[in-house]
Amino acid sequence: MRTRVIGAVQGRSPFSLVIRNVRIVNVYNDTVTEGSIGIVDDRIAYAGPMDFACQAEEELDGGGCYALPGFVDAHMHLESSMLTPAHFAEVVLACGTTTVAADPHEMGNVLGLEGVRALREAAGGLPLRVLMMAPSTIPSAPGFEDSGYDVGPEEAARLLDLPGISGLGEVMDFHAVAAGETRILSVVEEALKRGCLVDGHASLLTGRDLQAFRAAGIDSDHTLRTADKLREELALGFNVQIQSGNLSREMAEAMNSAPVQDQICLVTDDVPLPKLMERGHLNRVVAEAVALGLDPVRAVRFATINPARRLRLYDVGAIAPGMAADIQLVRDLREPRPEAVFCAGRPVCRGGRLLEPLPRPDLSAVLRGTVRCAPVAESDLVIPAPAGETALVNVIREDGVSARTTRAQRELPVTADADGHPALDTGGYLKMAVFNRYGKRQHGLALIEGMGPVSGAVALTYGHDAHNLTVFGGNDADMALAANGVIEMQGGICAASGGRLLTQVPLPLAGLLSPERPETLLAQLRAFLSDCARMGFHHKDLMSFFTIMPLAVSPEIKCTDRGLVDVAHKRFLPLIEERRGS
Amino acid sequence: MRTRVIGAVQGRSPFSLVIRNVRIVNVYNDTVTEGSIGIVDDRIAYAGPMDFACQAEEELDGGGCYALPGFVDAHMHLESSMLTPAHFAEVVLACGTTTVAADPHEMGNVLGLEGVRALREAAGGLPLRVLMMAPSTIPSAPGFEDSGYDVGPEEAARLLDLPGISGLGEVMDFHAVAAGETRILSVVEEALKRGCLVDGHASLLTGRDLQAFRAAGIDSDHTLRTADKLREELALGFNVQIQSGNLSREMAEAMNSAPVQDQICLVTDDVPLPKLMERGHLNRVVAEAVALGLDPVRAVRFATINPARRLRLYDVGAIAPGMAADIQLVRDLREPRPEAVFCAGRPVCRGGRLLEPLPRPDLSAVLRGTVRCAPVAESDLVIPAPAGETALVNVIREDGVSARTTRAQRELPVTADADGHPALDTGGYLKMAVFNRYGKRQHGLALIEGMGPVSGAVALTYGHDAHNLTVFGGNDADMALAANGVIEMQGGICAASGGRLLTQVPLPLAGLLSPERPETLLAQLRAFLSDCARMGFHHKDLMSFFTIMPLAVSPEIKCTDRGLVDVAHKRFLPLIEERRGS
Repeated sequence: MRTRVIGAVQGRSPFSLVIRNVRIVNVYNDTVTEGSIGIVDDRIAYAGPMDFACQAEEELDGGGCYALPGFVDAHMHLESSMLTPAHFAEVVLACGTTTVAADPHEMGNVLGLEGVRALREAAGGLPLRVLMMAPSTIPSAPGFEDSGYDVGPEEAARLLDLPGISGLGEVMDFHAVAAGETRILSVVEEALKRGCLVDGHASLLTGRDLQAFRAAGIDSDHTLRTADKLREELALGFNVQIQSGNLSREMAEAMNSAPVQDQICLVTDDVPLPKLMERGHLNRVVAEAVALGLDPVRAVRFATINPARRLRLYDVGAIAPGMAADIQLVRDLREPRPEAVFCAGRPVCRGGRLLEPLPRPDLSAVLRGTVRCAPVAESDLVIPAPAGETALVNVIREDGVSARTTRAQRELPVTADADGHPALDTGGYLKMAVFNRYGKRQHGLALIEGMGPVSGAVALTYGHDAHNLTVFGGNDADMALAANGVIEMQGGICAASGGRLLTQVPLPLAGLLSPERPETLLAQLRAFLSDCARMGFHHKDLMSFFTIMPLAVSPEIKCTDRGLVDVAHKRFLPLIEERRGS
Repeated sequence: MRTRVIGAVQGRSPFSLVIRNVRIVNVYNDTVTEGSIGIVDDRIAYAGPMDFACQAEEELDGGGCYALPGFVDAHMHLESSMLTPAHFAEVVLACGTTTVAADPHEMGNVLGLEGVRALREAAGGLPLRVLMMAPSTIPSAPGFEDSGYDVGPEEAARLLDLPGISGLGEVMDFHAVAAGETRILSVVEEALKRGCLVDGHASLLTGRDLQAFRAAGIDSDHTLRTADKLREELALGFNVQIQSGNLSREMAEAMNSAPVQDQICLVTDDVPLPKLMERGHLNRVVAEAVALGLDPVRAVRFATINPARRLRLYDVGAIAPGMAADIQLVRDLREPRPEAVFCAGRPVCRGGRLLEPLPRPDLSAVLRGTVRCAPVAESDLVIPAPAGETALVNVIREDGVSARTTRAQRELPVTADADGHPALDTGGYLKMAVFNRYGKRQHGLALIEGMGPVSGAVALTYGHDAHNLTVFGGNDADMALAANGVIEMQGGICAASGGRLLTQVPLPLAGLLSPERPETLLAQLRAFLSDCARMGFHHKDLMSFFTIMPLAVSPEIKCTDRGLVDVAHKRFLPLIEERRGS
């Protein structure tokens, strides 16, 4: 009962805390007002000029900082940080993010219901408010890969009925939705009949297909890249969620001039650890949007009250009486880096540092031991070829900048393997192998053009979206070594060169997350990337390259544990085409 | 599953209905687009130019009308129409209202939990979507009146846990909230801990008191009358709900220029039947607001998507794929009077007329027999006086225009009653009596200045908020006659003059509602008002005068079944002051 809240406002009993001398950013009317914030327990009791007699158990001088609501991230994935929820919270709380809606899509691919449950439990009891969604699209490319779980309507129902689940995570198979395919529509139906949120991913849809996607009951998108798409999606009632990579001057201007703005959010989606540690979280998206011309107070609105309402959090996202006391104090509204962060009325960060360590639930029970994969032999990596001098090979062309690939056909020489059988001579190409790590003895092989020459090899269990064991290398011996290194760690990232294991980054939690502190993991990842550079791996965003190459919904040609996939035409490609001539 | 919805958009299966040639008002971006609306079952599947091959089971030419979402009324009371929910639906559907959030405050006062349950059941199964709130403030003036129920935290919990209850109805005792009184805060707490809506009524609050009210967890107000109050409440995160009587040019301009508008709604609150039948429902509020300068498309937004979101109806309030197919076609956007209304995809009204009769649930079981009141004798109406020639009397001054009253003291002559005891000579004053009708033998008496001379009497069981039996008259004989007429009808409105009963308007359902059709009840009410005029009752809004005079939270002095109440000072007043002199 809010007796003490009202008593404090009326001066009869003390506020728990009064933050004085702040410029309060009001997301309800786009104003900034000098004043104070009175807090009782976990709630804001008063906000504004405090020109009346009142009591306070504690007072804090805000030093003229802007007081903003804590940022609310309406669409993100915890796993991209490779951190446990508690370590993730530690990093993002210091960036002013106090609420996130997490779609545990990666964890769901590896461990399904049990993984989502464990992640949700690990994300509970933190000062960071974590809403957990039920992942909807597992595997990402049904029939083209095998992951650790499979979400049909029954699994979706079980996921949605887990305690503390807030809605259905991004429905990614937009073509299937727009085509009216039963499997995905029946998954969506489970969410609709429970009356909960349904998030979407509508990247390539427009016009009639986009209307079909919306008509299916899906009403958000976080993949839009142009101002035209923004306007089209707003007109259809989508909650449009703009992420860093999709910002532009044109987009900022379109956001500024939208006649109705309550469905616009800024989100992070995936932020890999190095970017997170170096540049920030949702505060970075805000700063980038403002730098591109978005009005700063509006940017705050798009990162606080709008996402809170989207998430149906009715007492979050604004500094006003009755609201949860999630507050950040920032010096520069255009580039928010909080000097202090309060969650539910408690000071949590000061000067970018946690004031108290966060509870760290033990994740070991369910999440360990998830790499069920036989040791990799060099012979697994040999590409058998028909007898002859050459073979016509489908190779993946990579531009070294993005993870978008194209298909090419190359005539490659045929030699003999260790046993004298004809095999492809893959010199000059980067070899890729994907081993199922969920107990199926299957692997796919591919050759990548434009990424060589490379002297060693790397292996990872973090590979979208099935997170099978993915290996890249210039020679089979180092590939097998790296792969076996990862299997031995039961998940992680490993480099090998010249018959020696180099950096190992253990990700023993589902093969996705490290138990280490953020700084430690960051140092490990940097060491790994240095190894890669020395081995000759060069790419503008090498970690994205490694982790997206097995993603069989990403254009144009990728490799999964089942083999080479022509994504655009939804078909397998043979690695070696039937020989021309004879 | 939405297979057919998507099939229709993709041209593979038919739409149930296509409405062609309409100007679609898009509340997501304030635009108007020529096109068609494709409906499948109860849902909009497509909206916009339909320049592709598709099938339709039925087509309709919209004749170039504007297509708007059905209006959504975020705050209203069904009982003020005195109609059953089905009859009410018939009237308002023809006005374009397709969703209402009803606070059964009157029914709750009379019959508590059972009454609310019965009203909710009667409001189910109609094309009109009726959200039912749990009334929160019963009685309105605890300690100053006795109604049929009493809402403390336990009753609030039971009301909120009834199936189909959407939130807590307007918390009216704003002074008690702002003062932090336990009873009302614990009622609010029941709603907050269930995570549901909490509506408010904050009429006289401003500044710190308004912040206290908001801090209590109450976040709407429908009583604001000025642009300043609009801006103040918006800044605090209230959902501001503007009703007809509170519109002005200044208010329209303030709505137009509010930087963030998603918390502005137009609502009806109370609309008595004559006004409802003659002028309309939420469409009238829209038309009035537009006439005062509010942008028409914005007015539609404030009467559709904004209230729908307030009510947490996520698929209501817009013409877009995926939304409920609640649609009205109107010729004039500035004065909407729908030519056709569709609810959940079905045509419901055409040219202001229902296409099919609505189901009419039987309300008799619970709602009848609610006037538990002994017959009224003339002697009950005598005002005993101390012996002497005159007495100093507290009288109610009424201005004949509003229901705001003021207190006056008058020296009145003392005569003898039938038994020879001294009694007040009340000639020239309108006498008012309020008899408890919930089994308590108590009544209050008052004298009203400025409403006479009157020759007969009227009696009603509809009297805010306790709905006791209220009688007004120029002589005790006709007052007793009218009162007994109402008791005999077991609820209703009655006039008597010269020893004869005149018009009788039976309201046998809880003493509040008529089972008659709207036209019949309207004719009865008009006949009653004609009787009143002939008897000498003159007031700008006589029905409001009759029904608000017992309301002990309405300024400044009112009379309940417990007696004369000084509302501003929250105390009883003696009818006769201690005699001056001796």
